[in-house]
Amino acid sequence: MNRIDLNGDLGESFGAWRMGDDDALLPLLSSANIACGFHAGDPEIMQRTVAQAVAHRVAIGAHVSLPDLQGFGRREIAVTPAEAYAMTLYQIGALHAFTRAAGATLSHVKPHGALYNMAARDALLADAVARAVHDFDPQLRLFGLAGSALIEAGRKLGLAVAAEAFADRRYRADGSLQPRREAGAVIEEVEPAVAQALGIARDGTVRAVDGQTVPLRADTLCLHGDGPHAVQLACRLREALDAAGLRIAAPDAA
Amino acid sequence: MNRIDLNGDLGESFGAWRMGDDDALLPLLSSANIACGFHAGDPEIMQRTVAQAVAHRVAIGAHVSLPDLQGFGRREIAVTPAEAYAMTLYQIGALHAFTRAAGATLSHVKPHGALYNMAARDALLADAVARAVHDFDPQLRLFGLAGSALIEAGRKLGLAVAAEAFADRRYRADGSLQPRREAGAVIEEVEPAVAQALGIARDGTVRAVDGQTVPLRADTLCLHGDGPHAVQLACRLREALDAAGLRIAAPDAA
Amino acid sequence: MNRIDLNGDLGESFGAWRMGDDDALLPLLSSANIACGFHAGDPEIMQRTVAQAVAHRVAIGAHVSLPDLQGFGRREIAVTPAEAYAMTLYQIGALHAFTRAAGATLSHVKPHGALYNMAARDALLADAVARAVHDFDPQLRLFGLAGSALIEAGRKLGLAVAAEAFADRRYRADGSLQPRREAGAVIEEVEPAVAQALGIARDGTVRAVDGQTVPLRADTLCLHGDGPHAVQLACRLREALDAAGLRIAAPDAA
Amino acid sequence: MNRIDLNGDLGESFGAWRMGDDDALLPLLSSANIACGFHAGDPEIMQRTVAQAVAHRVAIGAHVSLPDLQGFGRREIAVTPAEAYAMTLYQIGALHAFTRAAGATLSHVKPHGALYNMAARDALLADAVARAVHDFDPQLRLFGLAGSALIEAGRKLGLAVAAEAFADRRYRADGSLQPRREAGAVIEEVEPAVAQALGIARDGTVRAVDGQTVPLRADTLCLHGDGPHAVQLACRLREALDAAGLRIAAPDAA
Repeated sequence: MNRIDLNGDLGESFGAWRMGDDDALLPLLSSANIACGFHAGDPEIMQRTVAQAVAHRVAIGAHVSLPDLQGFGRREIAVTPAEAYAMTLYQIGALHAFTRAAGATLSHVKPHGALYNMAARDALLADAVARAVHDFDPQLRLFGLAGSALIEAGRKLGLAVAAEAFADRRYRADGSLQPRREAGAVIEEVEPAVAQALGIARDGTVRAVDGQTVPLRADTLCLHGDGPHAVQLACRLREALDAAGLRIAAPDAA
Repeated sequence: MNRIDLNGDLGESFGAWRMGDDDALLPLLSSANIACGFHAGDPEIMQRTVAQAVAHRVAIGAHVSLPDLQGFGRREIAVTPAEAYAMTLYQIGALHAFTRAAGATLSHVKPHGALYNMAARDALLADAVARAVHDFDPQLRLFGLAGSALIEAGRKLGLAVAAEAFADRRYRADGSLQPRREAGAVIEEVEPAVAQALGIARDGTVRAVDGQTVPLRADTLCLHGDGPHAVQLACRLREALDAAGLRIAAPDAA
Repeated sequence: MNRIDLNGDLGESFGAWRMGDDDALLPLLSSANIACGFHAGDPEIMQRTVAQAVAHRVAIGAHVSLPDLQGFGRREIAVTPAEAYAMTLYQIGALHAFTRAAGATLSHVKPHGALYNMAARDALLADAVARAVHDFDPQLRLFGLAGSALIEAGRKLGLAVAAEAFADRRYRADGSLQPRREAGAVIEEVEPAVAQALGIARDGTVRAVDGQTVPLRADTLCLHGDGPHAVQLACRLREALDAAGLRIAAPDAA
Repeated sequence: MNRIDLNGDLGESFGAWRMGDDDALLPLLSSANIACGFHAGDPEIMQRTVAQAVAHRVAIGAHVSLPDLQGFGRREIAVTPAEAYAMTLYQIGALHAFTRAAGATLSHVKPHGALYNMAARDALLADAVARAVHDFDPQLRLFGLAGSALIEAGRKLGLAVAAEAFADRRYRADGSLQPRREAGAVIEEVEPAVAQALGIARDGTVRAVDGQTVPLRADTLCLHGDGPHAVQLACRLREALDAAGLRIAAPDAA
């Protein structure tokens, strides 16, 4: 493995409300997941965020979500696979309109929040999301949690996938994420997060909660845009990956 | 003029609520304007309505609206041209996703309700809507009120347009619609409406409120899906147009 | 037991969309659960529905829901107890404003759809909903599924409660409802539903799916407003209850 | 005039998005206008903001709005008086539920943004808003622009009113506000704004754009919560009003 993608969530403002520091985060990314109006974002914000991503030559993805502005897409909603399929297709189309009008390309789709988690563990929802991506454009790449049902569903349909890992979340020995509600699930300090990212990107391994070193192959690392150290972490991570001889690039970059 | 399009508004249910009799209206149309989730419609309804339109070989258009489910897109909202541009692009993209996944083509865009009226009289909003259509796909056709600022804006951008007229609305001598709030603005009975439609489609004229016969050139006639006589009017209209030797077809049909 | 309440869900239209036949159902009820804008209803519909209920001297309740117009409040959303408390209080207040302006009284609160089901089985959500009712007005009566966590939570707080049963749903021997997804869960025909209602209201028993007759004490029977036989069932039910010498009245009626 | 109220807009966050510095602004106010979920705020934020206002002994008002989260209630929507009445009543009730549960009192109602402006100039909308306030509780005080149709409508119904003026907006000689879109409409610097506020509060006069000193009687001054100098302006204003011997208190404070 000699290359790695750095992806981040952008365009998460809504109306008069601001969120995240897109200007600072964007230059540090190779892939941008842009909110599509269901958990955040509105048409003007989507237009502006696409323009920013184009200007920074960052690959653009649709960050599709359950319909829940108030809950920021983080509350699980018991949607059917048919609902998940249709809402994913709707949001891909909405974001695609802005990339098309900007003369740019839509590269990938990544579910957000609760939809990401539900599609990681539920094969029927995973299949619904993956089929929506495929039916819109079989050349789109599907981003999902490494080892998840979503990645599996994408592969089955013949989609290109990007297995995602996290610099700042603890893993269990089976490769699953330690749930956020458990103490220590988030790595708060910069250097340990950088070290974990480097291990994943360079060696394909991670040190699990129980101390074991376990395999974790990932194509893309997620950089959170909020949090006190978000930009600092992203900067240090780029340095460390560079120093290790890894190329930072979107999966489909030449 | 030897052909005319018959367009109607479809997919205006929302969630558990039903509206219109799409099954009855669809076979009578040559063009279907499908709601995009802003005044009516939701992703599953959009998917289903596109499938119905495809099955009936009816040309598909995006029926874009102001964001107002509660007001059914009929309340004017003081949006800026930049907002109108972005919301139009968003909705075109959302509907396009369903036509693309269905292997079908998106043919046209028609603003709905208050946005239709605002873009008919306000050149800046008209330009914003027309540019959104153009920037998504310059091959899309723009539907708007005959003689309106919207048709003018579309022409300026080089878009194909379809000037729309109404069988069941009274016109004033200057070619404008008599406002709905005035008595007699809506032609309630079937035969007078059929007669008016025939005059427009065959002769390019309409008898105005003041008794004058004035020119009114239209490419498409709007059939409302609700109202007590909607389906009956549509049936009679097709008969009368057939009998007059007019071909009923979408503007872009071969 | 010599009296029984008949409750029904009203005001479930939204904007331009109609649902249910409130005019036909209302005269047959003793308690009306009025939608509060989260799963159905809007401010004007709430105002109108309260006026109708006042005119028919039917007891008025707030039919509080998860925030999900598109899903009609039927999709479970993973809300916290704190969210459930605040959304319940918000909706009670919103409906109370219309009863207060009408010079009427708000009598009860009944959760709708997914919130009803979640509060029936989850003690923390049940407590949150019951506390919202109590904190608004400890004189309000809480409606919930007979035998549920919600009824238990209301009793613990000292609220008056109304245990609800269904004429047209099958029960299991433990008193729980057969899930809707199972065949036969809904009693489609009128007379068997009337017979079940009569058994519950007069004898406090129901014949379970497995053939056993089991105790089921209820203060109120739910009449659905939709379905092909809704009004017919309601009429027959009133006749049968009358004939059995039972008084149909809201729990707090004199 | 020996007393003046200082009011500010609070609780304007929404879901995961933050807005304003309520903690800093609240101690400087005598009246808090709390968003009711239509332009900002959600049930949990309303609950929290009411608790903060209670803790600071600040009078609580419902900050009612047009339904437009994306536009932050600032876009005019062509609502009917009947719609304005019902939406005002709904929001008053929703906020009242939180004051009631907190053992506190709802003191006033102030329309927000576009509804404020529309009700200032349109007598029918003004009457609708004022009637909603009156029908909920004739003891509530109605806040509106000094000299507006809203204040007039409130007076006609016998409501207590509070005429509002702005420290940081320029006035024209007829007492109307210079529109925001005109250069110089907002007083950006602290000391001139303090001087204007002092003139209004102490002398009942303001220096208009054309240099004339004109009468402007106001019961309450609006302090904006955003803007670079918001808290600084509020602090200086309190100092200056104190120094001038004016008492800062809600209109209904003892």
